[in-house]
Amino acid sequence: MIYDIAVLGAGPAGTSAAVNAAILEKSVIWLGAGMEKTDTARAEKIRNYIGVPDVNGMELSRAFSEHAKMFGLVPSDETVTGVYKGEDGFTVLAGENSYETRSVILAVGMKGAKSAEGEEKFVGRGISYCATCDGFLYKGKTVGVFVDDKKFENEAAFLCSIAKFAYVFPMYRDCGLKGDNVEIVMKKPRAFEGGARLEKVVFDGGARKVDGMFLLRRALPFSALAPGLELIDGHVRAGRDMSTSVVGLFAAGDCTGRPYQIAKAVGEGNVAAHSAVEYVDSMRG
Amino acid sequence: MIYDIAVLGAGPAGTSAAVNAAILEKSVIWLGAGMEKTDTARAEKIRNYIGVPDVNGMELSRAFSEHAKMFGLVPSDETVTGVYKGEDGFTVLAGENSYETRSVILAVGMKGAKSAEGEEKFVGRGISYCATCDGFLYKGKTVGVFVDDKKFENEAAFLCSIAKFAYVFPMYRDCGLKGDNVEIVMKKPRAFEGGARLEKVVFDGGARKVDGMFLLRRALPFSALAPGLELIDGHVRAGRDMSTSVVGLFAAGDCTGRPYQIAKAVGEGNVAAHSAVEYVDSMRG
Repeated sequence: MIYDIAVLGAGPAGTSAAVNAAILEKSVIWLGAGMEKTDTARAEKIRNYIGVPDVNGMELSRAFSEHAKMFGLVPSDETVTGVYKGEDGFTVLAGENSYETRSVILAVGMKGAKSAEGEEKFVGRGISYCATCDGFLYKGKTVGVFVDDKKFENEAAFLCSIAKFAYVFPMYRDCGLKGDNVEIVMKKPRAFEGGARLEKVVFDGGARKVDGMFLLRRALPFSALAPGLELIDGHVRAGRDMSTSVVGLFAAGDCTGRPYQIAKAVGEGNVAAHSAVEYVDSMRG
Repeated sequence: MIYDIAVLGAGPAGTSAAVNAAILEKSVIWLGAGMEKTDTARAEKIRNYIGVPDVNGMELSRAFSEHAKMFGLVPSDETVTGVYKGEDGFTVLAGENSYETRSVILAVGMKGAKSAEGEEKFVGRGISYCATCDGFLYKGKTVGVFVDDKKFENEAAFLCSIAKFAYVFPMYRDCGLKGDNVEIVMKKPRAFEGGARLEKVVFDGGARKVDGMFLLRRALPFSALAPGLELIDGHVRAGRDMSTSVVGLFAAGDCTGRPYQIAKAVGEGNVAAHSAVEYVDSMRG
């Protein structure tokens, strides 16, 4: 099936967008980890989301999630690895699935926004975001694997199993990966270097030679996520109607700029949903 | 005293702006009739302000008002008749008072946005928004008085008492004004006509010759409210940071454009407050 609207992200902006899209009777595919995994959920106290005074982050997060559930909306916790525009809409790659959609609302926050030095240069030339997609290219070779969430360990383990040698950079403790051909490096990759192709991953205090580097992250940099998306000061450039430089792709929440506020995100999610609905309706003529 | 921020309007945008400005420790003067008088309050059901599911308009309005009261914020129900920029800030005329403020957040909705045909042309040349300010100019003359809320009847009565003849256009039933020199016209003025000065008020099915016309309204058209404010398609032109063409004046809510949504208004009120705070801080160096 082809969805009307794909909402990427399940924080305040994504939740607001998904709820509004559903109320406006559009079919929605919603991808994201959910409110309970956001910074909002970790806030000690939230005083300025009017109508819900003096609440803590987890309480407000649960209220948002419950609100969405009333419309049958639960986000699918799949990591989006690419948003590609075709003739009639978009293909969204997420986890091991691919979704067809007429429009996209990007509400992915700012966590993954920043790419490491050299990252953009080597995407497709040594850098990959998907082990199952590109792993076979590195069979018997030396790879680096950046893992920022334990849930990606299966993918990382697959890479370790086919590579000659794997340097694993986990961003959490108790990494379960091991093997004679595995070295765990408890550092964050800072830069990627090479010539025509990636040759080296650099971190504070060292570097390793690699043939390929897999970045298994909960969120991708905007540049990798949606090719062609215009940025401004590191944020997605959006108009007052939340449209972006990619026709049919709208943005909402922290990814569009400061202030990083729940109310701003919720408002922009609402506006993005209205704009996406208008866009989808106009496509149908 | 000079306030940091004057918030004009007490709907969802104004309430959000006032609460955020107070949390950010700025001094606030808040002018508006209050949430209970808004269209939001009359909504049968509101389903898309996330976190507060399945609520009716009055319930949500009261929750917003209560939230503001927690910060000691209660709007002063005075009608703003002008926002004038000076060297160090703004003078806001409201009711019979005048307030000095470093910045302004315009959150007045769209109710008063549209001026009648010819209105702008004759402001200051026969058209006035304030009986106590300009009434004396029409002593012994013929005036028209448009009254859109019973609360302005005192002002209208004053005009009737000094005018030779008064045509009163009330927008409600049971108008209490009468007298030998008063004609009640149950029509809405559609246009104002004249040469160098106003000469005639036109309504469906008739017209009356007048020397002056008083428009006593809960909300003024943007053009009358804040001279110099740039509009776009009948709305206040605002940037992503809610700044307008007047430096130090920010806008939020319905007045900045569609969709006319509570969440959008609340989000924009939040952003406008942050921008106004930044502006005020930058003024102080």
